[in-house]
Amino acid sequence: MTQPLPILVTGAGGFVGRSIVASLLEQGREVVAMDVMADGIPAGAHVLAGDLASADLRREALGDGVSAVIHLATVPGGAAEANPVASRAINVDAMYDLLLEASAFGNYPRFVYASSIAVFGDPLPAFVDDQSPLSPKMIYGAHKAMMEHAVAMFTNRGGIEGVTVRLPGILARPKGPSGLKSAFMSNLFHALKAGEEFTCPVSAQATIWAESLACVTGNFLHALELDTTLLPPTYAVTLPALRVTMGDLAQEIARQCGVSADLVRYEPDAALEAAFGAQPPLSTPAATKAGFADDGGLDRLVASALQTLG
Amino acid sequence: MTQPLPILVTGAGGFVGRSIVASLLEQGREVVAMDVMADGIPAGAHVLAGDLASADLRREALGDGVSAVIHLATVPGGAAEANPVASRAINVDAMYDLLLEASAFGNYPRFVYASSIAVFGDPLPAFVDDQSPLSPKMIYGAHKAMMEHAVAMFTNRGGIEGVTVRLPGILARPKGPSGLKSAFMSNLFHALKAGEEFTCPVSAQATIWAESLACVTGNFLHALELDTTLLPPTYAVTLPALRVTMGDLAQEIARQCGVSADLVRYEPDAALEAAFGAQPPLSTPAATKAGFADDGGLDRLVASALQTLG
Repeated sequence: MTQPLPILVTGAGGFVGRSIVASLLEQGREVVAMDVMADGIPAGAHVLAGDLASADLRREALGDGVSAVIHLATVPGGAAEANPVASRAINVDAMYDLLLEASAFGNYPRFVYASSIAVFGDPLPAFVDDQSPLSPKMIYGAHKAMMEHAVAMFTNRGGIEGVTVRLPGILARPKGPSGLKSAFMSNLFHALKAGEEFTCPVSAQATIWAESLACVTGNFLHALELDTTLLPPTYAVTLPALRVTMGDLAQEIARQCGVSADLVRYEPDAALEAAFGAQPPLSTPAATKAGFADDGGLDRLVASALQTLG
Repeated sequence: MTQPLPILVTGAGGFVGRSIVASLLEQGREVVAMDVMADGIPAGAHVLAGDLASADLRREALGDGVSAVIHLATVPGGAAEANPVASRAINVDAMYDLLLEASAFGNYPRFVYASSIAVFGDPLPAFVDDQSPLSPKMIYGAHKAMMEHAVAMFTNRGGIEGVTVRLPGILARPKGPSGLKSAFMSNLFHALKAGEEFTCPVSAQATIWAESLACVTGNFLHALELDTTLLPPTYAVTLPALRVTMGDLAQEIARQCGVSADLVRYEPDAALEAAFGAQPPLSTPAATKAGFADDGGLDRLVASALQTLG
């Protein structure tokens, strides 16, 4: 019996990437883990350190073919806005090359693409569902939207088997600079777990869409296995997410950590409130139909997020 | 009083481009007309011969700024399929550069982008309306879809004032190779007007979406002036079109030309029938709301198309 081909994870050194790589290794899968910052990739993966824009590195990563690609590598939102040229080079051009190259083996690899709710615009429309038009404003959102169509095209042509998942906020990311303007959502967890005061840059009434790290990892593993005939014609779904207020989130974190929610002071920044604190009602039946899930409740979201804080 | 800035028309040497340039000149507008094949551009335009991929040529074309861009330049469907690298270079990369450069003047020029019904896939879905998902299969359709989002993004950011119009079949194109697989629709006109036999590569029952050249020219001129708040959040509309069968079209052309429709013999090619002869029911209320129109009847479509055969 021949060995199954490996799974390539790009952006494997990131917060979500490490978790996915760890889960795949636990399942006994062979993993090629690629990232500019390769530190912290779980032991057991075949690590490739370097830039997605390097044709040589992509050639090495794809080797003699892969069974699947989980494509997380990206110039994130804030960084893309600050450097649109870098976003175009990585989020559009290098990804297009990767799609072309992955299509060339003829084995129709599953290609799971991490897109973003930024495709819906900034600010988001008053309601988001599976019929919401894509009208990006941020560089990041536009490049993600553009590449959703490239994934659909390569899938329709029989090059890959594409699955695009649009990620909500993932809780809780590690402390420190991540290039993501939405980092405050995670920093709230770090502060309360440490019993420290936290100045929240959006209001207590601010609404966010969230999934825990464990939940999104499960959704990526599901994307590797799901029956793609259950997907919409675009092969793209907005992942289910819980819509919670920052006030409710703070109360629940404080309760589970045994500290007072009064540690949180709200000093809304108008731009952040508009961009990340006004996430509207969300309906994702297409993702549910395809078998994706949210955390199932605020208490479970918070418990799951606290567990992965480290 | 300062002179109004010129209007840049890319792809100005093409069938639709020449007609638009002529109409703009009749209105007394100053026109910069750019094309690889600059022959046949109406006298009076400032002609720039060359490739959209040339940064120098784009710089010259934009000059000290333009009031509007009508972006028709494209590697067309069949040619894009045969040469995906050229399609990517022109239909994606060069257009993105043009959007960036047109955005840099700060005068928010109107940017009318000729997209295509190919964004909906191949074959088309069973019904096309303003909620139809974009799921391209052809290289051309994918690149058009990708750039619809770039137009939306540059519009949302305040760089341009984008209007994307998805074109149906335009009747009747000049005889000869155009790179368009749908050329048979126009060749039917040429044959019957000349009283010649015609072998139609789709069936008499084949359904097509069509606008006459005069109609689409009017729609482009309307796109320059319309109130963009009437557009959907994507700034993209599928243009209204008449849905007619090839048999009915042949009958009406024959009637107006005073020849027998028996000159037409139907020898359907399965691939062409699927790609261009099975255009489903079409509903375009968003375009109608924004003031776009179709020809208003098969007799008027045919009369208009015959008038521009030359």
